[in-house]
Parts: sequence; C-alpha cells; structure tokens
Amino acid sequence: MAQEENLADCLLVGDKSLILSLLGKLDPNHHYSFEIVDVGSDLVKAAEMSVQLVNEGKGDIILKGKTDSGLLLHCVLDKEKGLRISPVISDVLAYEHPEGVKLLSDGGVNIAPNIEEKIAIVKNAVEVAHCMGSSQPKVALLAAVETVNPKMQSTIDAAIISQMNKRNQITGCIVEGPLAFDNAVSLEAAKIKGIESPVAGNADVFIVPNIEAGNIFGKLLTYYCGYRVAHVIVGTKAPILIPSRADPGELKMLCMAMALTCMQE
Amino acid sequence: MAQEENLADCLLVGDKSLILSLLGKLDPNHHYSFEIVDVGSDLVKAAEMSVQLVNEGKGDIILKGKTDSGLLLHCVLDKEKGLRISPVISDVLAYEHPEGVKLLSDGGVNIAPNIEEKIAIVKNAVEVAHCMGSSQPKVALLAAVETVNPKMQSTIDAAIISQMNKRNQITGCIVEGPLAFDNAVSLEAAKIKGIESPVAGNADVFIVPNIEAGNIFGKLLTYYCGYRVAHVIVGTKAPILIPSRADPGELKMLCMAMALTCMQE
Repeated sequence: MAQEENLADCLLVGDKSLILSLLGKLDPNHHYSFEIVDVGSDLVKAAEMSVQLVNEGKGDIILKGKTDSGLLLHCVLDKEKGLRISPVISDVLAYEHPEGVKLLSDGGVNIAPNIEEKIAIVKNAVEVAHCMGSSQPKVALLAAVETVNPKMQSTIDAAIISQMNKRNQITGCIVEGPLAFDNAVSLEAAKIKGIESPVAGNADVFIVPNIEAGNIFGKLLTYYCGYRVAHVIVGTKAPILIPSRADPGELKMLCMAMALTCMQE
Repeated sequence: MAQEENLADCLLVGDKSLILSLLGKLDPNHHYSFEIVDVGSDLVKAAEMSVQLVNEGKGDIILKGKTDSGLLLHCVLDKEKGLRISPVISDVLAYEHPEGVKLLSDGGVNIAPNIEEKIAIVKNAVEVAHCMGSSQPKVALLAAVETVNPKMQSTIDAAIISQMNKRNQITGCIVEGPLAFDNAVSLEAAKIKGIESPVAGNADVFIVPNIEAGNIFGKLLTYYCGYRVAHVIVGTKAPILIPSRADPGELKMLCMAMALTCMQE
C-alpha cells in the first residue's frame, strides 16, 4: 500500500525466508520492490537492526511488524545505541474529528507519568501539532474534574503545568487544566462551570493523566466514533510506529503518513 | 419533567424563598405540586436533611441540585447518620449503545481504587446489571493492554479479579481481564490477540482502573458518540444522583429512571 501510494520505500527487517514467503502472497500483477535485511528469526536482532539502520541514516521511520512493542522500545531506548532525543518518548495519536484534526497523548507508552514526564509529553505533542500546521495549539490537560483537588494528582499536575505555560516555561501553545472532557470540547459545559479560557470548548490537543485513560480514549474513537486515527511515537531520532496487530492495514498507512508529517520540521 | 412523566414525587430541600422564586419560573399553565423542606441557605444542612429524609423513609432517591458532589457524598458516607450499605460506594453509568444498554464504572467516585475497592466496584455494577435485566452480565476489566504486565497495576488487579470470578468468589457474572477496549468490543480484535472468552468482543459491563479513564469514557459517549447516558451512585440505602450542573435536564431524568430501576431488586 505504501509503495502504491508512493509514500515510502521499505526495508523489511527479519527472517528472509519467512518474508519471501509472505511476499509471495502479494498480488503478482503488481511490481513491488523491497530490500530485505536478513537477521534470521530472532526478533531482538530485528529490533536492534532497525534501530541501527536509522542510526546509519538508512531508515527514516520504524514500523513495528509482528513483534512485541516492549521489545522494540527497549532497543529504541538503549542508552548507547538507541534513538531517544527528548527527555521522554511518548505516543501521540491524531484523529479526524468533524471539526478538524485533534491530538491525544499518551495512551501508548508512559504508564503513569510524573509531573516531569507529563511536561515532556505536552512538549512532544505540541511539536507534532506544529508539524501538522497548528502554530499555537490549544492544549487541554484532562482530569475527571475541572477543579484542583489535592486528593487527585491529575488535577494538581494539570494546575502546575498550566501555570508553567503562563510563565512561558512551556511555549508555542496555550495550556489549560485541569479540565474535564466536557469542559474541553463544549463551550456550553465550560460556561456553566464558569471556565474562561481559549482552550475551554476548543481544545486541539488532549493530554491524559495515565495510559489507561489515553488508551480507552483512543480506542473509543475507532470502535465507537468511527473516526480515522493514526499514532506515532516521538521524542526519538526517527518516528516509531507501534500499531496493534489487531489494527487494519489502513491504520498502519495513516501512521506512516503522520510520521512523514512529523519529520517535516 | 419527572412529575409530567409520572416518574416521581419530589421533596425540594433547601432555601424555601429561593426555591419558590425558581418555581415561579415554571410554566404557570401546568399544575405542579412540590413539598418544600426549608433548611435555609446552608448547603450542608440541605445535604444532611436529604440523607435524614431517606433514613426516615420519606425519600427514596437523592438527586443533587446546585451543590457540590463532595459535600453531599460526605454526608452520605457519615458513619453514624449516613447511607452506605456496601463496602464501597461507586458510580455506575448506563449508556444506550446501538447493540444494547452497557454499563461503565467508576468514572465518578473512586479516584484510584485498590484491589478491594475494585472488587466492590465490580459487585456494585453487577447488581445494577441484574436490576436492569441481565442475569449473567459479561464484565470486562479494562486496561491499556490485554497482557499482564507487572509494571501496570491495572493489569495485575484485573488478572486477580478474573481468577476470583473463576473460583466463584465473585458470582452472578462472567469476568475477564485485563482487556484493552478493542478486545472487549471487537471479536475480530480479540481473535487476532488470541483471546478466548465469552466477554471478549461482547462485554456488557466495563470496569475501568481509575476515575480519569472512566470519566473521559463516559463523557466521550455523550459529546462524541451522542449516546444517551445516565449514572447512579450505588452501594447506599438509596441511589444517589450526582449529575453535573453542565448536564441537560433530560440526563437528570434518565438518571432518575435508572435509579428507579436499581431500586427494584
């Protein structure tokens, strides 16, 4: 699909004989050309080689195949040979909402980020928004409520990060939080709660406080809303794509397109 | 609305003069009859009186008005005068999915429940499912992944609770977890991940690991999916309704209808 769309050339890293047998199942009437990088059947070697190809300038994006995300990310995060360039790597999901493309982070990598990790997650997502053409994205820091509650860490962290934005410690965006989801997407709901902010009711970027909230949010978009989604791991020398094996081919294509956009800055 | 639908009689607890001025704004062509319980303008007294009315058998449901949920729940949870009858009170949300009514818990009360609290949340939700006509509900314990990961408490707790269900320590339902949202709602996604369970792809009840995941899930259903939702706090002598002030009147009506259903067992 990527070749047909002239989107990317592909290096296939793995067990050459297995790859050739899979390629044999493709439409024989279409001419495909793939470079195969044979590393045998060891998935660790495949991950290491993929990272190495990026470091050698031979690869621009890594797309996970039938391997474990944890295994791939372990190689990506290797301190000596890895690809991390930001304090934190994070997953940024883009979805086609009827009002425009929105971003969501992080439902894929950081399990229960602390305040410093959340700041990095915001910065990574804002960079992606810039690449996608939004010069001053409106970032909502989501919690279950819009009031600061000392018993809810998500509301405390959101208040801190919002204030850091007002002090220009986080730039290129307007950050507001804590916001409940309704206050972030509905002007009416924000108004009833007395929230005055350009972000309220108009958020472009949604930052969730934990991986479960983000993962459920992202999967509802696909399975309940029917929106098209794509997601990319950023904070690395090259975008890393870890779609689920259960995701359709089209989603993997959209991830590739999003990754190409992220590389433009 | 509740009177017009012959759904409930209402005791209005609060500041009598304020209540009368609000009642003056109702359609004068319609005959309404309300009993007003005057407690002056103190919201704490209004909450305490509402709880007392339930304890005296004069009230069957408490519907929050323009007051703070925390304040009301504080009175509900009072050890001497309160209404708690289950180890944990929890919020159960019902939504009208095209395939049928589904339940979600807990996006409203328990911030970061521990394993014992999660077990109580499951049991409370299962009781609601029984009241709503599902004798053996299929319960999905949601996490961000479907594999048990020692670094993700949500997956550990889900594995434990699933196994407790298999040992008949939690009955009247089929529990499965950890499941990611896609495995819980899509047979295809479950199949690709090799998950064999009657719950996979067919969940009736979704249990989330933290309040943010549940709150965002619930609000997406309203603001993105356009589904009708209602939610009720259970585990108490009377159902407690804490709709947001930003919620429309219809939602408060649906909450009342759901509460009446929950009282039938």
